[in-house]
Amino acid sequence: MPTIIDGKEVAAQVLAECAQEIAELKSQGITPGLAVVLVGEDPASKVYVSSKVKKCAELGLHSEKIVLSKEATQEEVFAVVERLNRDPTIHGILVQSPPPPQIDEAAIVRAINPAKDVDGFHPENVAKLALEDSSGFVPCTPAGCMRLLAAAGVETSGKEAVVVGRSMIVGKPMALLLVAKGSDATVTIAHSRTKNLAEVCRRADIVVAAVGIPDFIKAEHIKDGAVVIDVGINRVEDASRKSGYRLCGDVDFEAVADKTHAITPVPGGVGPMTIAMLIKNTIKAAR
Amino acid sequence: MPTIIDGKEVAAQVLAECAQEIAELKSQGITPGLAVVLVGEDPASKVYVSSKVKKCAELGLHSEKIVLSKEATQEEVFAVVERLNRDPTIHGILVQSPPPPQIDEAAIVRAINPAKDVDGFHPENVAKLALEDSSGFVPCTPAGCMRLLAAAGVETSGKEAVVVGRSMIVGKPMALLLVAKGSDATVTIAHSRTKNLAEVCRRADIVVAAVGIPDFIKAEHIKDGAVVIDVGINRVEDASRKSGYRLCGDVDFEAVADKTHAITPVPGGVGPMTIAMLIKNTIKAAR
Repeated sequence: MPTIIDGKEVAAQVLAECAQEIAELKSQGITPGLAVVLVGEDPASKVYVSSKVKKCAELGLHSEKIVLSKEATQEEVFAVVERLNRDPTIHGILVQSPPPPQIDEAAIVRAINPAKDVDGFHPENVAKLALEDSSGFVPCTPAGCMRLLAAAGVETSGKEAVVVGRSMIVGKPMALLLVAKGSDATVTIAHSRTKNLAEVCRRADIVVAAVGIPDFIKAEHIKDGAVVIDVGINRVEDASRKSGYRLCGDVDFEAVADKTHAITPVPGGVGPMTIAMLIKNTIKAAR
Repeated sequence: MPTIIDGKEVAAQVLAECAQEIAELKSQGITPGLAVVLVGEDPASKVYVSSKVKKCAELGLHSEKIVLSKEATQEEVFAVVERLNRDPTIHGILVQSPPPPQIDEAAIVRAINPAKDVDGFHPENVAKLALEDSSGFVPCTPAGCMRLLAAAGVETSGKEAVVVGRSMIVGKPMALLLVAKGSDATVTIAHSRTKNLAEVCRRADIVVAAVGIPDFIKAEHIKDGAVVIDVGINRVEDASRKSGYRLCGDVDFEAVADKTHAITPVPGGVGPMTIAMLIKNTIKAAR
């Protein structure tokens, strides 16, 4: 029977550590503060932003939610970021992705003070990750995946890992984390142009799926006894649900789970980790 | 019979392109300038620095060679870098690696104006490479390897590439270049902790060896018909040579060549490309 890696439980552990660190910081007169900027009205973005702010409140973190209209200009977003860069009560800033099309997201990310870039997307933090300089911020989702592997007791050294997806949000940082000294995995980055993807994935002791396609990874992709981390959070229409949709991973859990040594479910796997790592990064920023 | 990829010839093509670009820039009153800083008396470093300066002279580039004693302090090196950052006749700056042990090389690299960092080692350029932002400088050796692959007509899209070595000088940037959109290879990064290295390498359509161990890659590592790029430039004692040594790659050429579709020799493969790409980066910096 496979181990179902319980992201809610591991996230709760991370948040318990965070609560202790927050208490310490508060005793020194510091309340870590996170600002979340939402531009427009994307429904998924609204949900993410609300749950981040709610989690801050639960933990006694200071948080600020700034909502700009979907017609906001680049200059308006810059002005908000610059105000937050200067605000001493704010240690972490994130601008919820994706912004509306008139906004140059990369330029906004570059405008964030790298020391407050708790999403880890600023070029200075990207470089620190590549250079294995631990003073930077690691993007929350791949950081959460690494923590799940550790929590499940998965040894990465000398193991074959295949990361499916080459985005700068998940795929590339995940590959850089797995190949870094200390993790020491042999890492393959696969993507939409990869030929024989099933064969490539079947080599893997550890598969990380980050493609954004529901149920994309099937049994043929998975070696017996592999560990599978499913980063996908896809909304699939489902008339039987009140919301009209259900969440579905990039991995066909039903088809794959029995072959694995351990696997993350969706929901309740990587998802809860992302927000926990965001809180952890915010505390790091406050230190 | 394998194609022996002639690095001298490809480098000559790159330098011919450079000569044309230099002529154009000069007609606009701009002479690209490169400053090479050597700290200490490492014999290999001295050779590299001299050949870089000589190549600049051949091409009509302005160059400056700054030699500091092996007792130079961090502050002295900083002072030189800061002067060069301000010097309008200097468009490219490189500090020859490795400096003596009292020098913090990473701090020196960070002090170089990223717009003059023709080695591509500054964090801003590292991030641009990871983010696939072509406005940055790509490290010369991996850039040279990509050019050799193109010159040999090697298609990378959908091909399996294995990069052996995970340094920020060659291994990681090479992997990032091969996996980037447009190159589209499926890339595996292998290293000293990789198990079954021969098996991992045998999957590869393209093997890039950057480990710094003479004759490390043997026939058992190479699939029939693979393309092999040998980044190693190792000095091996050889009493029969006047110099007392010969240059030797990371690939056992004799054992491997006949199995390959194409292979780079050492010397005369990747080596000449590095300096050609440095000149190309200096011209880019001057534009």
